Amino acid sequence: MTVSDRWLLPDGVEDILPPLAGQIESLRRDVMDTCQRWGYQLVIPPLVEYLESLFTGTGNDLQLQTFKLTDQLTGRMMGVRADMTPQAARIDAHTLAQEGITRLCYAGHVLHTRPRHMLAGRTPIQAGCELFGSQSEEADTEVIRLMLEALRVAGLPGIHLDLAHVSIYQSLMGAADFDAATEAAIFDAMARKSVPELDGLLGECESGSPGARLRDLARVSGGREALAQASEILKGFSDDLDAALNKLSRVSDMLAESYPEVSVGFDFCELRGYNYHTGLVFAAYVPGHGDSVAKGGRYDAIGSDFGRARPATGFSLDIRALVSLGQRPCEIPGAIWAPADADPALERAVVEQRSAHTVVRALPEDAGVDPRNRGCDRQLVKRDGTWVVESLG
Amino acid sequence: MTVSDRWLLPDGVEDILPPLAGQIESLRRDVMDTCQRWGYQLVIPPLVEYLESLFTGTGNDLQLQTFKLTDQLTGRMMGVRADMTPQAARIDAHTLAQEGITRLCYAGHVLHTRPRHMLAGRTPIQAGCELFGSQSEEADTEVIRLMLEALRVAGLPGIHLDLAHVSIYQSLMGAADFDAATEAAIFDAMARKSVPELDGLLGECESGSPGARLRDLARVSGGREALAQASEILKGFSDDLDAALNKLSRVSDMLAESYPEVSVGFDFCELRGYNYHTGLVFAAYVPGHGDSVAKGGRYDAIGSDFGRARPATGFSLDIRALVSLGQRPCEIPGAIWAPADADPALERAVVEQRSAHTVVRALPEDAGVDPRNRGCDRQLVKRDGTWVVESLG
Repeated sequence: MTVSDRWLLPDGVEDILPPLAGQIESLRRDVMDTCQRWGYQLVIPPLVEYLESLFTGTGNDLQLQTFKLTDQLTGRMMGVRADMTPQAARIDAHTLAQEGITRLCYAGHVLHTRPRHMLAGRTPIQAGCELFGSQSEEADTEVIRLMLEALRVAGLPGIHLDLAHVSIYQSLMGAADFDAATEAAIFDAMARKSVPELDGLLGECESGSPGARLRDLARVSGGREALAQASEILKGFSDDLDAALNKLSRVSDMLAESYPEVSVGFDFCELRGYNYHTGLVFAAYVPGHGDSVAKGGRYDAIGSDFGRARPATGFSLDIRALVSLGQRPCEIPGAIWAPADADPALERAVVEQRSAHTVVRALPEDAGVDPRNRGCDRQLVKRDGTWVVESLG
Repeated sequence: MTVSDRWLLPDGVEDILPPLAGQIESLRRDVMDTCQRWGYQLVIPPLVEYLESLFTGTGNDLQLQTFKLTDQLTGRMMGVRADMTPQAARIDAHTLAQEGITRLCYAGHVLHTRPRHMLAGRTPIQAGCELFGSQSEEADTEVIRLMLEALRVAGLPGIHLDLAHVSIYQSLMGAADFDAATEAAIFDAMARKSVPELDGLLGECESGSPGARLRDLARVSGGREALAQASEILKGFSDDLDAALNKLSRVSDMLAESYPEVSVGFDFCELRGYNYHTGLVFAAYVPGHGDSVAKGGRYDAIGSDFGRARPATGFSLDIRALVSLGQRPCEIPGAIWAPADADPALERAVVEQRSAHTVVRALPEDAGVDPRNRGCDRQLVKRDGTWVVESLG
């Protein structure tokens, strides 16, 4: 083991240094404070849980993303959380078990076995909000608006919001009755939005069949005109799909009123990263960044696995990624330098200044150091027997 | 797998709910802000690292405490951090690599394979400060004072501070030349402060020998009088031990001046939990709680394993444990209830109130709910066409 090997961090794992660490902490606080002012109460879910509770109601993706550990106290398998949303659902269903609406928020490190995409890290700092107990469109709208508010706090302009509904794809596939291999190939092609592949897989389907509707739907995306096209394609298929499209329409209307600056689009075949969702889902994008900056949606099913079925919707985002993308002003106030002097009056002056400012005390090794190289723009100096703060010019 | 099994969390792992989660977040912020006002810069070390970098320069205890994972990208072994101090040392030695004094602080979850003692959890929230680049007693004193300041912020009165120096035990054992089994038995008896066992193990040692001095020293603890007794027992043994005792004496003098309310004691055989320490160590206790509430000390050696030997000292504490012990006032300001009303003027009133207050919006499912059962003490009501905040009485 050479010295340089010891320096190496695993891929997608990083030391966050000053001043970036301070910016992340500051955004984390501001996002959490925003969520709390919307009535979301902070919870701190555990870093590890037994695998069964981590994966309940969630898809295979999350299992692949989760590091497994053996609990030395019981011999059972635990996992390091890869997503805090299912944890919040467990807390709502079992630990809190309140009647009526429950609003929770959280922020913390999660760990992924592999980066989600080429530029992602493996230790995102996930922050999010979850709203339990309401099936209403007002609830869907509230979490989307709170997500947009959090992105505003992060200093991200030019947000584009994609709305989708996972039951559209699920209903069509359920009715189409493909074999498992074809179904997997379609899912894969849909997730990559590969129209030529979908044409190959679904080209034989006769007009009006679920397969043909899927094929046509894969070509549709965009603003309100896309919603009209989708209605046309799905007309007469089922009441459930009509209801899903109407829901998308009404939620987008509600958002347009309060966030006219946010462009809203529809993507009827969005499948990526929605592991446990059951209804309206959404994702926010900014120009020049391929991956979504925040996402979420409805997942009414999870709670039932914990013994209590609850309607649920929420969003989450990666504070670490937002700081890299955002243009939040980063002000680091200059510190005050206190010389190495045993005068008790200096000690009192330092205590006083520290109630509002940063004071760096010189140590014996600091002899000859320029305080300006230590982030200081002022210093404590003794004038006429009194310690006063003076600019370092 | 029954539903109740899914609810179960591993021993020593917990969901932290409101209002406790909010109190923890608040103390975490206040402790970090205090550290930053003393000139310590925030870093965010990673949740996982390769084992070699996690364990470098540290003892066996930390290896036993650390959960191991296989990195799926490289096949190498990683560990989930069980202690953030060695991470800060690695950041100082390699990632930052600054000349002169470096002050770092951090806060985050760590994970232990087993609880450290009967009442401890396995996922403490560790916060701490580390000061690199100074061998001075002023540096030792600064980190102790900052630790006491953090405990004051946590609302812990009646602090008792134990000072010790790990080289006392190490020097005596080094000179005694026991076989490995005896050495292990002595270490174990010392750690448990079992005087009868030590008498059995060291009773044969002739007066003035290292063994006899150890045996005598194990009986000594207390305030300044203990320091005088230790000086007597160790007299003439080595200049290094005299220097260690003098250091303890001077540091305790410096602390007595600025923290007269803190009782200071000396414990010359303190060994528990100092995995990588090399010099003056310290631990803070409160009445009625057996385990220390914060601890730290000098660990000059770690950095050399990362290619850069640096003098270092620091402290850390468990924010989660401090909140349980402390008497910090816990004020949860009441929220404002906004009825389910689509009036755009209400929406504007909600936005305005949220700049400073928590506003909970009623959802359709809230019909008939008493807002006072939702943490609200005020509500928005329409009077003469204007939305105003009124008390809920």
